[in-house]
Amino acid sequence: MVKITDTTFRDAHQSLIATRLRTEDMIPIAEKMDEVGFFSMEVWGGATFDACIRYLNEDPWERLKSLRKRIQNTPLQMLLRGQNLVGYRHYPDDIVEKFVQKSYENGIEIFRIFDALNDIRNVEVPIKVAKKCGAHVQGAICYTTSPVHTIEQFVNLAKKFEELGCDSIAIKDMAGLLKPYESKILIKRLKEEVSVPINLHSHCTSGLAPLTYLAAIEAGVDILDCAMSPLSMGTAQPPVESIVAALKGTKFDTKLDMELLNEIRDYFDKIREKYKYLINPISERVDTRILLYQVPGGMLSNLVSQLKEQGALDKFEDVLKEIPNVRKDLGYPPLVTPSSQIVGTQAVMNVLTEERYKIITNEVANYVKGYYGKPPAPISKELMKRVLQDGEKPITCRPADLLKPEYEKAKEEAEKKGIVSKEEDILTYALYPQIAVKFLRGELEAEVIPEEEEVSKFMEIP
Amino acid sequence: MVKITDTTFRDAHQSLIATRLRTEDMIPIAEKMDEVGFFSMEVWGGATFDACIRYLNEDPWERLKSLRKRIQNTPLQMLLRGQNLVGYRHYPDDIVEKFVQKSYENGIEIFRIFDALNDIRNVEVPIKVAKKCGAHVQGAICYTTSPVHTIEQFVNLAKKFEELGCDSIAIKDMAGLLKPYESKILIKRLKEEVSVPINLHSHCTSGLAPLTYLAAIEAGVDILDCAMSPLSMGTAQPPVESIVAALKGTKFDTKLDMELLNEIRDYFDKIREKYKYLINPISERVDTRILLYQVPGGMLSNLVSQLKEQGALDKFEDVLKEIPNVRKDLGYPPLVTPSSQIVGTQAVMNVLTEERYKIITNEVANYVKGYYGKPPAPISKELMKRVLQDGEKPITCRPADLLKPEYEKAKEEAEKKGIVSKEEDILTYALYPQIAVKFLRGELEAEVIPEEEEVSKFMEIP
Ligand SMILES: [Co+2]
Ligand SMILES: [Co+2]
Repeated sequence: MVKITDTTFRDAHQSLIATRLRTEDMIPIAEKMDEVGFFSMEVWGGATFDACIRYLNEDPWERLKSLRKRIQNTPLQMLLRGQNLVGYRHYPDDIVEKFVQKSYENGIEIFRIFDALNDIRNVEVPIKVAKKCGAHVQGAICYTTSPVHTIEQFVNLAKKFEELGCDSIAIKDMAGLLKPYESKILIKRLKEEVSVPINLHSHCTSGLAPLTYLAAIEAGVDILDCAMSPLSMGTAQPPVESIVAALKGTKFDTKLDMELLNEIRDYFDKIREKYKYLINPISERVDTRILLYQVPGGMLSNLVSQLKEQGALDKFEDVLKEIPNVRKDLGYPPLVTPSSQIVGTQAVMNVLTEERYKIITNEVANYVKGYYGKPPAPISKELMKRVLQDGEKPITCRPADLLKPEYEKAKEEAEKKGIVSKEEDILTYALYPQIAVKFLRGELEAEVIPEEEEVSKFMEIP
Repeated sequence: MVKITDTTFRDAHQSLIATRLRTEDMIPIAEKMDEVGFFSMEVWGGATFDACIRYLNEDPWERLKSLRKRIQNTPLQMLLRGQNLVGYRHYPDDIVEKFVQKSYENGIEIFRIFDALNDIRNVEVPIKVAKKCGAHVQGAICYTTSPVHTIEQFVNLAKKFEELGCDSIAIKDMAGLLKPYESKILIKRLKEEVSVPINLHSHCTSGLAPLTYLAAIEAGVDILDCAMSPLSMGTAQPPVESIVAALKGTKFDTKLDMELLNEIRDYFDKIREKYKYLINPISERVDTRILLYQVPGGMLSNLVSQLKEQGALDKFEDVLKEIPNVRKDLGYPPLVTPSSQIVGTQAVMNVLTEERYKIITNEVANYVKGYYGKPPAPISKELMKRVLQDGEKPITCRPADLLKPEYEKAKEEAEKKGIVSKEEDILTYALYPQIAVKFLRGELEAEVIPEEEEVSKFMEIP
């Protein structure tokens, strides 16, 4: 029997409508979704925290609480970016501890935790805290391909996760690059080496995910991430209903009720209609170029937009070819937040200035200095030389070991600003200081949902 | 090694943009596609003949000739509706013979031939003629599910195809209903019982096709129908590039060149942009309702449009529930042209008149009388009684046995009208008499490709 994690309230709308689904559109269907019998519902974390306050004028903590109230049977799951939590930088351990505790208290029962470099040190603290709370912890391997990545490395990472007490292992295939027969090998090896359940998370971007899901099922995967069909496919997950139907009557049968799923489908069909002008048509469709360039779908759109701003769209092909070079120089990081932005921006610089590393971004400098963790392979010596001053050496410790506690200071500041009406507000402030002040003071307004095509969104990728 | 048939020039655009792709948009990429090494390219037949003259003011025979000129290495393939050829009624044998001969002479090397009822008698003549021409003939099984359809029936049909000299067998899953594990069983049985290659043709409508393709590969399928990614998915076929990438480096490797495919992809990306307002958003997306109602995607849109015209959209659910009843009464025909229209329209009648079979359409009457062939199961006795006069009996012979030759008469008429400048024009006239006269006289104009959303197209299915 295969279990399904529903991603509709987190990754699906993050992938298709830039994380803009509002709580008011989740509430009316939440109880019905709770009846389905999903293994879990991913409803929080990733970009949802940021998007709630920045674009929707919504308190992410309130969203979580109101979902919990209506979803009593299905474990709620969140995506946690290791020591980066739901932000883009490493936070000190006291913030990590507090954030995980509060997430648990407000209703998160399953924490999926990853680090962009697969550096285990960057996930140890959040895993420990979540375990201590009593949560189910899922260690997530960022899947990528490169000359230095091997199946055995991923298996070793999984073993470390298990040693840290993780209750399950996720293969996080954020770019949709995992091929069916590679997934078979990986999953079989994982089943041999770890005893906890294996969860596959992929995106349909390249068109591989549905095939890979079937291969994974045959290799013994335990849990598959899927989204309700109106918010599935394209850059999102494969459709729940199709997977359920495909397995009906086989030994893998999910036992989920197609009639009930169909009622839920009808609801999300209307929701999709409501948000349709937020959908970039590019993200709805299969983009097979990533199979050639190995560049995730979202990164392609970002590049086009960066190059357009600079009036240099004609350099698109050059940048595409430079990305693998930069990635190599940086020791082949998986391309996922924040490494995808770090690599992409530097590749644009290298092309536009017509001299590689003539300008080096702060992020690349910090990356080279070790402040994001240990890259999968050594960084290019030449680049090291350019970044480091004479005698300077990259740090080798866990990046957060160098960070001073911040919680008490944040608390003091936030209280002084008069924006604290609950403990969680201190965390919101600690994570997003500028925007949190405006948000908590009620100075922000929710974006309007567009009612016609916004031309800017329909960027054509050449 | 798995082989790929590319459907971009026939089924893909028939499914996604209502068969409106013009020859001028095929020509510039034809030679590059010829280099890929596809098993075949499906470029003709189905609805393309009708669409060419009716909407595009194009001569379908000229299209075929100009493609053949540029595609010298890849066999060109067409879809032939058995005794219905590329029309909607049974034609007499002399027309069938002439049409198949001329198709072959103009460049078709592979004829995929099916009958909507899987009545082998309706495909015998076209198969014989195509074989005599020296063509590769592919016998196509219309896949469907019902209480009377069994794997063994499909296998028996395949055996009959082989006995008739077919060079390969296609599983034609027009509604996208074939599930992965059923495809495994079916393909394994076919491989045991017939010695010719097996080709799977499916549509992504329900989200099953990509999974089913992987299962089919493992069961030993020889050829898969795919479309170039910009015109793939939704109600069309799975993407060529994703299937090629998925199998790269495995024993199933298609050996096709991803770089070359990517160049072709870029071309079709622009073509899709050109035709984008012809795409009904409904046909772009996975529609999992067909898994529940077993009603093909195209039929759903037609129903909505029929009901809207009658101001009876509120009866949609009732009609959906009535369709399986009518299908049962008619002996469970597969739902494909023309049976899908026959069943759908009668179901609408039964609901709107509030009395089942109070009005019986001519098509249902003729169907009951046996003029479409032998249904998979007996027709309901009650319906028989309503349709047949006292003592009247359905025909039991092959329907075309009752048809007089038409070619000489058509020739005479067409010549009298002064519309014949080549032999093929007589066939165009014989198949589509009204429209052919206007077309061949040059009185028609090509539709304009819309440059903005046509509101009528964006019908919401409730
Ligand atoms: Co994801
Ligand atoms: Co088809």
